Amino acid sequence: MKGFITFGEIMLRLTPSYKNERILSSNQFSVGYAGAESNIAVSLACLGNEVEFVTKLPNNPLGEAALASLRQYGVTTKNSLRGGNRIGTYFIEIGSSIRPSRVVYDRAGSALSAIASGEFDWTKILSNKKWLHLSGITPALSKQCAEETILAAKTAQDMGVKVSFDLNFRRSLWPNRKSARAIFDNIISSTDILFANTGALKDVYDYSFPGKNKEDQTMLAMEKASTVFGIAEMAFTIREHQSASQNKLCGIGYRNGNIIRSNTYQVEVVDRFGTGDAFAAGYLHALGREWPLKKSIDFATAAFAYKHTLIGDVNTSSEQEIEVIMEGDLSGHVIR
Amino acid sequence: MKGFITFGEIMLRLTPSYKNERILSSNQFSVGYAGAESNIAVSLACLGNEVEFVTKLPNNPLGEAALASLRQYGVTTKNSLRGGNRIGTYFIEIGSSIRPSRVVYDRAGSALSAIASGEFDWTKILSNKKWLHLSGITPALSKQCAEETILAAKTAQDMGVKVSFDLNFRRSLWPNRKSARAIFDNIISSTDILFANTGALKDVYDYSFPGKNKEDQTMLAMEKASTVFGIAEMAFTIREHQSASQNKLCGIGYRNGNIIRSNTYQVEVVDRFGTGDAFAAGYLHALGREWPLKKSIDFATAAFAYKHTLIGDVNTSSEQEIEVIMEGDLSGHVIR
Amino acid sequence: MKGFITFGEIMLRLTPSYKNERILSSNQFSVGYAGAESNIAVSLACLGNEVEFVTKLPNNPLGEAALASLRQYGVTTKNSLRGGNRIGTYFIEIGSSIRPSRVVYDRAGSALSAIASGEFDWTKILSNKKWLHLSGITPALSKQCAEETILAAKTAQDMGVKVSFDLNFRRSLWPNRKSARAIFDNIISSTDILFANTGALKDVYDYSFPGKNKEDQTMLAMEKASTVFGIAEMAFTIREHQSASQNKLCGIGYRNGNIIRSNTYQVEVVDRFGTGDAFAAGYLHALGREWPLKKSIDFATAAFAYKHTLIGDVNTSSEQEIEVIMEGDLSGHVIR
Amino acid sequence: MKGFITFGEIMLRLTPSYKNERILSSNQFSVGYAGAESNIAVSLACLGNEVEFVTKLPNNPLGEAALASLRQYGVTTKNSLRGGNRIGTYFIEIGSSIRPSRVVYDRAGSALSAIASGEFDWTKILSNKKWLHLSGITPALSKQCAEETILAAKTAQDMGVKVSFDLNFRRSLWPNRKSARAIFDNIISSTDILFANTGALKDVYDYSFPGKNKEDQTMLAMEKASTVFGIAEMAFTIREHQSASQNKLCGIGYRNGNIIRSNTYQVEVVDRFGTGDAFAAGYLHALGREWPLKKSIDFATAAFAYKHTLIGDVNTSSEQEIEVIMEGDLSGHVIR
Amino acid sequence: MKGFITFGEIMLRLTPSYKNERILSSNQFSVGYAGAESNIAVSLACLGNEVEFVTKLPNNPLGEAALASLRQYGVTTKNSLRGGNRIGTYFIEIGSSIRPSRVVYDRAGSALSAIASGEFDWTKILSNKKWLHLSGITPALSKQCAEETILAAKTAQDMGVKVSFDLNFRRSLWPNRKSARAIFDNIISSTDILFANTGALKDVYDYSFPGKNKEDQTMLAMEKASTVFGIAEMAFTIREHQSASQNKLCGIGYRNGNIIRSNTYQVEVVDRFGTGDAFAAGYLHALGREWPLKKSIDFATAAFAYKHTLIGDVNTSSEQEIEVIMEGDLSGHVIR
Amino acid sequence: MKGFITFGEIMLRLTPSYKNERILSSNQFSVGYAGAESNIAVSLACLGNEVEFVTKLPNNPLGEAALASLRQYGVTTKNSLRGGNRIGTYFIEIGSSIRPSRVVYDRAGSALSAIASGEFDWTKILSNKKWLHLSGITPALSKQCAEETILAAKTAQDMGVKVSFDLNFRRSLWPNRKSARAIFDNIISSTDILFANTGALKDVYDYSFPGKNKEDQTMLAMEKASTVFGIAEMAFTIREHQSASQNKLCGIGYRNGNIIRSNTYQVEVVDRFGTGDAFAAGYLHALGREWPLKKSIDFATAAFAYKHTLIGDVNTSSEQEIEVIMEGDLSGHVIR
Repeated sequence: MKGFITFGEIMLRLTPSYKNERILSSNQFSVGYAGAESNIAVSLACLGNEVEFVTKLPNNPLGEAALASLRQYGVTTKNSLRGGNRIGTYFIEIGSSIRPSRVVYDRAGSALSAIASGEFDWTKILSNKKWLHLSGITPALSKQCAEETILAAKTAQDMGVKVSFDLNFRRSLWPNRKSARAIFDNIISSTDILFANTGALKDVYDYSFPGKNKEDQTMLAMEKASTVFGIAEMAFTIREHQSASQNKLCGIGYRNGNIIRSNTYQVEVVDRFGTGDAFAAGYLHALGREWPLKKSIDFATAAFAYKHTLIGDVNTSSEQEIEVIMEGDLSGHVIR
Repeated sequence: MKGFITFGEIMLRLTPSYKNERILSSNQFSVGYAGAESNIAVSLACLGNEVEFVTKLPNNPLGEAALASLRQYGVTTKNSLRGGNRIGTYFIEIGSSIRPSRVVYDRAGSALSAIASGEFDWTKILSNKKWLHLSGITPALSKQCAEETILAAKTAQDMGVKVSFDLNFRRSLWPNRKSARAIFDNIISSTDILFANTGALKDVYDYSFPGKNKEDQTMLAMEKASTVFGIAEMAFTIREHQSASQNKLCGIGYRNGNIIRSNTYQVEVVDRFGTGDAFAAGYLHALGREWPLKKSIDFATAAFAYKHTLIGDVNTSSEQEIEVIMEGDLSGHVIR
Repeated sequence: MKGFITFGEIMLRLTPSYKNERILSSNQFSVGYAGAESNIAVSLACLGNEVEFVTKLPNNPLGEAALASLRQYGVTTKNSLRGGNRIGTYFIEIGSSIRPSRVVYDRAGSALSAIASGEFDWTKILSNKKWLHLSGITPALSKQCAEETILAAKTAQDMGVKVSFDLNFRRSLWPNRKSARAIFDNIISSTDILFANTGALKDVYDYSFPGKNKEDQTMLAMEKASTVFGIAEMAFTIREHQSASQNKLCGIGYRNGNIIRSNTYQVEVVDRFGTGDAFAAGYLHALGREWPLKKSIDFATAAFAYKHTLIGDVNTSSEQEIEVIMEGDLSGHVIR
Repeated sequence: MKGFITFGEIMLRLTPSYKNERILSSNQFSVGYAGAESNIAVSLACLGNEVEFVTKLPNNPLGEAALASLRQYGVTTKNSLRGGNRIGTYFIEIGSSIRPSRVVYDRAGSALSAIASGEFDWTKILSNKKWLHLSGITPALSKQCAEETILAAKTAQDMGVKVSFDLNFRRSLWPNRKSARAIFDNIISSTDILFANTGALKDVYDYSFPGKNKEDQTMLAMEKASTVFGIAEMAFTIREHQSASQNKLCGIGYRNGNIIRSNTYQVEVVDRFGTGDAFAAGYLHALGREWPLKKSIDFATAAFAYKHTLIGDVNTSSEQEIEVIMEGDLSGHVIR
Repeated sequence: MKGFITFGEIMLRLTPSYKNERILSSNQFSVGYAGAESNIAVSLACLGNEVEFVTKLPNNPLGEAALASLRQYGVTTKNSLRGGNRIGTYFIEIGSSIRPSRVVYDRAGSALSAIASGEFDWTKILSNKKWLHLSGITPALSKQCAEETILAAKTAQDMGVKVSFDLNFRRSLWPNRKSARAIFDNIISSTDILFANTGALKDVYDYSFPGKNKEDQTMLAMEKASTVFGIAEMAFTIREHQSASQNKLCGIGYRNGNIIRSNTYQVEVVDRFGTGDAFAAGYLHALGREWPLKKSIDFATAAFAYKHTLIGDVNTSSEQEIEVIMEGDLSGHVIR
Repeated sequence: MKGFITFGEIMLRLTPSYKNERILSSNQFSVGYAGAESNIAVSLACLGNEVEFVTKLPNNPLGEAALASLRQYGVTTKNSLRGGNRIGTYFIEIGSSIRPSRVVYDRAGSALSAIASGEFDWTKILSNKKWLHLSGITPALSKQCAEETILAAKTAQDMGVKVSFDLNFRRSLWPNRKSARAIFDNIISSTDILFANTGALKDVYDYSFPGKNKEDQTMLAMEKASTVFGIAEMAFTIREHQSASQNKLCGIGYRNGNIIRSNTYQVEVVDRFGTGDAFAAGYLHALGREWPLKKSIDFATAAFAYKHTLIGDVNTSSEQEIEVIMEGDLSGHVIR
């Protein structure tokens, strides 16, 4: 058994091409294709892993382009379905300094959200795979997407495929937090590795934690999550939003009761989208490599930080590029 | 009473920015906002008329940008509504030579298609207006859109506002041609000026006409349409598709039993979208000016031809620019 | 009586398209249309106000494009004249870090600067308006422009239209400071609201003020200005130029003897042009809303800061976007 | 046994981004990756076939980007090697009207040209494949490339893999035509399907053929080639260069003594590079589909013509898009 | 004595960057620097000649960029002056098919037009030069420019420097044709080589010539011009404007009573600006090479035709590129 | 004797056009031409000096474009040779924050590296020149380049032309540091002015220096270098790499035993390439002006800092622009 599977929605991402221009006055959009789970697939592929992405996309040039954008990095897509009416779309105005980034979603009615029961044969899809990654976004897309996510997780669990879950909560996609909680509980019951942060736990489970700073609060949160959810492996991000252009970052890893904090990075933000996905991909890569917890959380956090310096949702960096950061060379010295 | 009203959907138009590139491999899209009725509004405004466009658009930057794109040309939008979920979107690959242009529509669920009964107060909207233009696209968007279009036409008729109707048939938007016919009949019963071509009459009404060439067939079609629909004013286009880059064009006008053919234009095609709308706008402008039939159809056809040389859906040309063409100066002599 | 009028010159703004490229080596310019008073008109429109801009522009596509750029945001232009020889033009190299921005003006002989007496009918233009905004740039363009600005101010005063004046001093446009002073005195005598800063007062009136910091100096300046000019409402900006990329900003408001300082903002500069106009527009918006002084100066200063993060001269932000900043959320958190 | 293998060099293609600009004054280049054999691989993949491309590329981002450009279309690259010093590069000025296109090659010392004996294990690479495609360019790159091409052909022949060969002669890459002839003879002795045209036969073998037009000359050439080379399946192109913007095209197919001519296409040229490759790919696709000779040559020629309308070296069209052309619909009617 | 001098104005040329877009809706302009005489200087330099361009430009980055644009091609500028207020500017909408190109000039008040008497030391400038080229545009810019042009011509004549003059008439720059005639007569009295066409002779001198076609009319015109002006060497262009995209071209040369017509070229037009300058430069180059009349007019006309295929005002082609056209290879065959 | 000569390689520089995009996913490259010695030539020319650049470039449009890029700034190139196979090329991914910039070199086999003995006639080239600048890069290109560099230095020394040498060490171009040392020793023996930094001395000569900070270490290094190499004039840079986006800079000058440190600059980095060349050019300019040591090192360091704010390898700033920085105005105040 080897290789990763991720399952979810990949969308058309449109951003004003001219830096710091607004949607209102833009007459050119830069085109990308991205989604939480496909971002992780791309990053894992760029790190040298075998990865497959499973989704459904319309049978038109936009659906084809979305798949092509993944295949170019070596992600395979042979179990992705074609059909349905449209590709989910989102528009980003990338913020700067005190001006926040703004996302306009237009994803209702997407091909994946409109799947029917039985379209994916999970037993076949998961055969001979080692890892399945899921996120909290897919089950929010539609009732069938929620059921499909749960089914994928259960099938994986039954087949001995390790399940990772990013407890990603998009408020606008759920009727209320309760509905999310019910479904997340179900997925988490089949989950081996959990990605989250205190904000998401607060949003979905209304947990809040004392502690003099975010690190302490996060550690408490992870201990609580371990107890409540019965999960032995977790990686949480901590992000201090200084402005749309400056973030301070770290990560905390938890494995079988041990808890370790990574170095902290101060980064100037080029594009903050997909950074959480870069973190998760970095951690999954570390798991695949069977690295110790310290190295795992350090690598994931270095990937997290590195992604902030790249335009677009996907972290295309190599293992070596991240290792340089992980080992503390933040000098920006030219590599010739 | 003065000025024009057009009612319909304006969409986000996305086209690969790099000429002759395909959607599949494009990473930049040129952005426009267009629709049959809004195109006519823009052209009428550029020709010097007072025009208002009525629609519904989502309350987000894309909806705002669509309105801004109209206002810049002087089209007013004060009765347009804001709300709903999304802006209809379409993607164009502009063809060349033997390769046809291709459109991917993603317009289901747009704000206008999802209107409820009573959102538009037609009596108020149409007060003091002289002309209302409608097309066959809007009633195809949803049941309520069909009812709204009929209501707008009836209200206009009752108020003495002249109604023009472009018998525009988008096959993919209708369950079948019968459903279109029923609604079109209803609209046509309130119509004063009809725009169409033999292809649309064939598609919707299954009419076909003998005749040794398209001109003869079209003239027969117009006589038939006048009899059947009881319409005294009509303008039809004739287009010979030589390739995606070369078209031969003319127009035929009908007024109270008189029928006149315009000059024929051979044009190299820059962007063929919105050319029919340029024709209709040209004819409506001529009506507003109370020009004789010959001048009216000549002006409309010159506008039709001129639009083929402009990128984008909208004909931004002035009355003077079209008159030069109408008067036969096709030399392309530099204007200094 | 309602709505704003601004009067002045709108110019063609050309900037090397490729970031940090110089005019010398640039082969593409980004195109905009801007001017102190039209910037304020756009910002007021984006904040939801009725606004009209009055100017004169050549009867060519550039004049048309300048008006279109305003109309797209909802600014009306029906009293703007067409004629004259050219549109004023300026070229900007946007600076970075220690390299300052550089402007090359080419505005002599513009349509507005060459107006003759009597072209604008101020009584008609100002009827039913509530606010007229003027700046120190327009009277510097030509003798007739100075007379026209004074006439506009006087007519407004007579008609009960409130007059705001931005004491904007462009050294290169005046023979000497004395000539500016004479005309400014004349305008100020009809002014209800004054926008300025200590630098402009120093430049024009040779005032300087003791005080351990810029805030104290500015407050003294405002008190002096109130006494000398007899103006009850003022808003001044304070800007610390740390570099072309980093500025520290605040604003001070004065109303009937009360003086209040806003929060201070540290911003990374995307485009520093038009920021003073964003401040004035924010303050005028607050006056229109009849907000208290504290909220007024806070809103104006938040608008001032926000504009630094947008490319181009105009502040297209909404009331809500500025309120978020005003209320202290500078985290740059993504808005989804 | 199924699927295609192509073997050769893929290069970095750089073209001035601004249409009709020259290399001398261009400050932006559009980037592509292309080569005769990789172009065929892409086209075969877009037509729905399993295809693999075998090459050697440097272990840097340019080598990676070249592979990514193939993978995006579904071409697999698992037997391609990484190493060597550089990627071959070429620069194109695309011509227009009477101005010819111009290519500046910079391909000496490329990774593929510098391979050593034994780097490719052809027995392994060709196992379970049905078709191997080679061209006359690869053996021209270096002595080892010539030996490798011959070895690939021989190994394929031994293993029962069908060999196709495009008798592509790049004068500047050979010391003289004799050296090419010796190697081509060797490859042709293992070839099942030959692609060529009369010009290449003239250049390499000094054959010339009487006949009142190019069609007759080409048919004679094919009969001669069949006799001399003992090849039963051939497809030749005929191109009339009217200008850099207008070409007239047809194709002639030969199978077991039968010879059939395709329709003729008049096309406006967008990008003439890679059109011969589109032809060969179309013919190979037809062979894979086991279509009769008439349909095969018609499809190949339609693909040949269609490619002229696309920017870039690769023909990304689908089977359906080419069939429309093949069936004679050259109207350029918009596909909605 | 060797090398060419040209004297005149170089302007900033701005064109919407996106092909077929209008000034009204363009937010990016492509930047060039061009003028009749500087275009000729560039073309002569690209053909391998020593050339100097003399002008006056403002002391700002735009003036510097204009000079840099010439120096890059090897044109020297050491006698060009710096000072004055502005660089002349023009905006082009490039036409297509039946839509003509449109130029908006904004050149009044340019640095060259505002020169004072005595700024140029023609004796020094012309020392050791062989050829001076002038056009009818420069004397139209201002009274002093007219005097300066005449002075340059007279000084050259006195010093034995050959004078060529392009009888270029820009209607909008002159009060009336009489004023042009008076000055042209003066310049022509010092002219050795005259460039013109029948349209210009008609416009300025009200000459018209019978003849069944443009060639015959032009030959009559040249004979008349030779008699009236006493000029022994002339080269005239003939252009048939089929559309903005298609032109038919030829040239006629006259030397000491011999008159020879060139081949005719049918070209698709990429950019028609500067084509007359390319013709004149080609002819001057031929004079420099001391080619016979037939070769001279053939080369000039081939250069004339070639320029139509290049974007921008300047003909950057080499002698060899033009010779290929002159020798009749219009096939557009790729040069590898 | 006057003016500067620099000798070396100029390369094609390709950078992803879209900011922060990677080579892997870029489909547009910005094009420049640069090299250590040509960068210095351009900067010296922009500062108002007479400069010539000597190199060898292929006889194709890329070689021509490289020369044109220098000529536009006024650098002369009359002794540069044309011929050879290719222009050296490099690709840059410009880093940001913690992500370092990355350079992919593809320069082997360039025209200059492949020169033969005797192609350059140094006695002729250097006649009447005052300064010759060389760097450590050229001798690394090939054995003949090393000999040529030494020959140029020796010839200059013999002719009384002052020689400056930038001890620039590109590890990847040398077999080992010993080989570099041998050649550098040879060049230094003819050198009058040395540019370097402690890193280069460490890399080539294995020198390391105690000292509590970089300033102290650098001063020790300079004293040692003066002693060992017998050089009386030196200028060294000090750079603290805080990140790819933030650098802290200073410079140290040494003249006849006096040693002076410049101000320190904190800069946000736009493009870090060519900054050392800007420093050397600034210092050479100061030497040309015969400024005192303090002013010389201050000017050089201000130029060094200023270049960090410009995109591209070359410092196009004027003397006045650098003086403003040198005099301490880092406020970024707009220059109008």
